[in-house]
Amino acid sequence: MNLKTPRTRLKRLPKRGAHDFATMAAVIPTGYGRKGRTLYIHGSFASRMLNELATGIPMCLTVTLVDGLVLARSGFHSSVNYRSVVVLAKATVVEGEEKGTALEIISEQILPGRWADIRRPNRKELKATLVLKLRINEASAKIRTGPPKDDEEDYALKCWAGVLPLQLTPGKPVADPRLPANIPVPDYARKFPRPGRKK
Amino acid sequence: MNLKTPRTRLKRLPKRGAHDFATMAAVIPTGYGRKGRTLYIHGSFASRMLNELATGIPMCLTVTLVDGLVLARSGFHSSVNYRSVVVLAKATVVEGEEKGTALEIISEQILPGRWADIRRPNRKELKATLVLKLRINEASAKIRTGPPKDDEEDYALKCWAGVLPLQLTPGKPVADPRLPANIPVPDYARKFPRPGRKK
Repeated sequence: MNLKTPRTRLKRLPKRGAHDFATMAAVIPTGYGRKGRTLYIHGSFASRMLNELATGIPMCLTVTLVDGLVLARSGFHSSVNYRSVVVLAKATVVEGEEKGTALEIISEQILPGRWADIRRPNRKELKATLVLKLRINEASAKIRTGPPKDDEEDYALKCWAGVLPLQLTPGKPVADPRLPANIPVPDYARKFPRPGRKK
Repeated sequence: MNLKTPRTRLKRLPKRGAHDFATMAAVIPTGYGRKGRTLYIHGSFASRMLNELATGIPMCLTVTLVDGLVLARSGFHSSVNYRSVVVLAKATVVEGEEKGTALEIISEQILPGRWADIRRPNRKELKATLVLKLRINEASAKIRTGPPKDDEEDYALKCWAGVLPLQLTPGKPVADPRLPANIPVPDYARKFPRPGRKK
């Protein structure tokens, strides 16, 4: 699929992809769910950010994963390995049956397997929740991988260089103080994955 | 210090802090450095984002750390533990001697101890780099900690509930393929910290 437009055309470091667009942005960190080319975000019905976005203004949603610190022999070439996506779109409000489905998609994006265990949203909760969707028609990715690229003369320096990998890692699950002792930690929480980079 | 203004006044969930401001935002993920109440960001001299921000337009810089998934017994009360800061400011361009100092501050913010080992920026590199600074005069933080808070009747459900802690964790350092074998991994890379939440 071609997500390239004049606004997502690559400008700087085209081999990594590039973006310099800031018309309007969801600056508030938020969870999301994706099904095919549709992205869902949600929040309180009173959220000013979501209500603003619900009017259909141009918006921008960014997802970034940091994979490591790139320790070059100079500050100038020091960098970060990451995977980042920018989606430009206009949101629409999700209603009716799709609203429950969207909440499930968001939940399963964050912790696959969880939705089957929890109580579903009731009518009051659905009413208190605003769900928006974006079509992914205009987007680009920016990625850096691999070792540092130093100036040729800097390779002679007696300075360690390489990559310090970083990963979002789960710790030991902490049970709610009010949880009965006979309810075990579910597998999906014990084996929480961070999807690896596909080669 | 009082960073509260009509724009950073708390509106929703005031006990966690709140923000609903999106005049203009650095949507591009970027490193930063802080010294006292001054924040530094940097990038290519050709970066459209930085050049735009350098004109002094209102901007917003957000820093977020995700501390864990909050697994409540309902989707509605499921949440995330996090620490997030939003700074509203207008940037100015950093020049002269402060430019080198700012780059050191950014480097030391990302990996303390590294700056002493690497080659310093030369004149050409400084010229190719744009450094901006922001004064932290208008800002607020938003934080969630602790177990889920469920509806009273949901505590009877046979569903595991609690927190799945998440942490950005360093892996084993990967040496540059061109690194001589006799240069050891420095301590600061082996013990890379993620600062914990201060109680």
